[in-house]
Amino acid sequence: MYIGQVAGTVVATVKHEAFAGHKLLLVERLDLEGQATADYDICVDVARAGVGDRVLVLDEGNGARQVLNQQVAPIRAVIVGIVDDVMLRD
Amino acid sequence: MYIGQVAGTVVATVKHEAFAGHKLLLVERLDLEGQATADYDICVDVARAGVGDRVLVLDEGNGARQVLNQQVAPIRAVIVGIVDDVMLRD
Amino acid sequence: MYIGQVAGTVVATVKHEAFAGHKLLLVERLDLEGQATADYDICVDVARAGVGDRVLVLDEGNGARQVLNQQVAPIRAVIVGIVDDVMLRD
Amino acid sequence: MYIGQVAGTVVATVKHEAFAGHKLLLVERLDLEGQATADYDICVDVARAGVGDRVLVLDEGNGARQVLNQQVAPIRAVIVGIVDDVMLRD
Amino acid sequence: MYIGQVAGTVVATVKHEAFAGHKLLLVERLDLEGQATADYDICVDVARAGVGDRVLVLDEGNGARQVLNQQVAPIRAVIVGIVDDVMLRD
Repeated sequence: MYIGQVAGTVVATVKHEAFAGHKLLLVERLDLEGQATADYDICVDVARAGVGDRVLVLDEGNGARQVLNQQVAPIRAVIVGIVDDVMLRD
Repeated sequence: MYIGQVAGTVVATVKHEAFAGHKLLLVERLDLEGQATADYDICVDVARAGVGDRVLVLDEGNGARQVLNQQVAPIRAVIVGIVDDVMLRD
Repeated sequence: MYIGQVAGTVVATVKHEAFAGHKLLLVERLDLEGQATADYDICVDVARAGVGDRVLVLDEGNGARQVLNQQVAPIRAVIVGIVDDVMLRD
Repeated sequence: MYIGQVAGTVVATVKHEAFAGHKLLLVERLDLEGQATADYDICVDVARAGVGDRVLVLDEGNGARQVLNQQVAPIRAVIVGIVDDVMLRD
Repeated sequence: MYIGQVAGTVVATVKHEAFAGHKLLLVERLDLEGQATADYDICVDVARAGVGDRVLVLDEGNGARQVLNQQVAPIRAVIVGIVDDVMLRD
């Protein structure tokens, strides 16, 4: 899992019912200083995240399907939580 | 999943029936500004994408097989949709 | 698996019971000279690691679920051990 | 999948019968201009590729095992085809 | 799979019986000129490799478990062979 920030939304005509009813959020991966890196994922969201939120992203297919409780879902990255706080040692 | 752009097609003599009837599209991964990166995937397409289209790529084997409804298919990346719009926060 | 160092903790409202009772530790990946790289993982911990500890991280979903003995757990990275010593040839 | 070029062969004493009878080919990953990148894979070959051939590489364990029709095979990358042509848009 | 060189050993208190009896070897990934890259894996060894040996590393969880004949083993990278020779085209 990694810490990301919701940077926007993607509208796409997607050929699979697993996406029905799910917003596709575009999440930038953050580094440890909270800065956006060049990496991003198009995520399905189960934590009601909004644009600008810091989130926890699970980027693993089997795990993503389990979160969505859908054995058959072509989904690889899921927002599993909203980050409240990150405490780093000095 | 990531946003890509169809950059061309690949013609290859492939030793597996799972590819029969499928075009192999060469998709460049785009960054958040819509520019092509050095990363690319050879994709099977289920969204009737054409060269130049902006597309959603699922790059995960188990998920790809589910989209194609083929339990046995040596396929890792599938075009699952055509991107209509990307809305990024300011 | 790789060698990491626990750099801090993450507090997040996470939508899956698999995380219940588990601290989320932020682990920086170390290079062979023991220096932190830009890579990190948010890990579940089964080795009672603390901030500053050098740890062994397993970053693979199926393996992570087996360590936690949870067939259904959206978890990708687990701290499986505390590193006592690294002996490198000259 | 990606486009690679067979750069050589590897001779190794390998502790698993799944490799019996298979040549291990060293394949460099090519970029879209056909130039070798720093990435490479040691591949099992099912397309009768030879050194210098441009090939299609499937780099995913479950898919690789399906191509080889071996449920139990510690193989991650397989040459699944010989590239005849790559047509890139201008 | 890739070509690596055993650079050392790791001693760790690991919380899973699958590691019992296995040395943890630290393997640097080599590039095609045989030089060490920044990438490394902590590997379980089934080829009786020693420090300094050039080895074949399988870095894929399901495949690694099959080599070890352990369905339940939180292991991602295994040394599957000792490299005898690498022949590269001119």
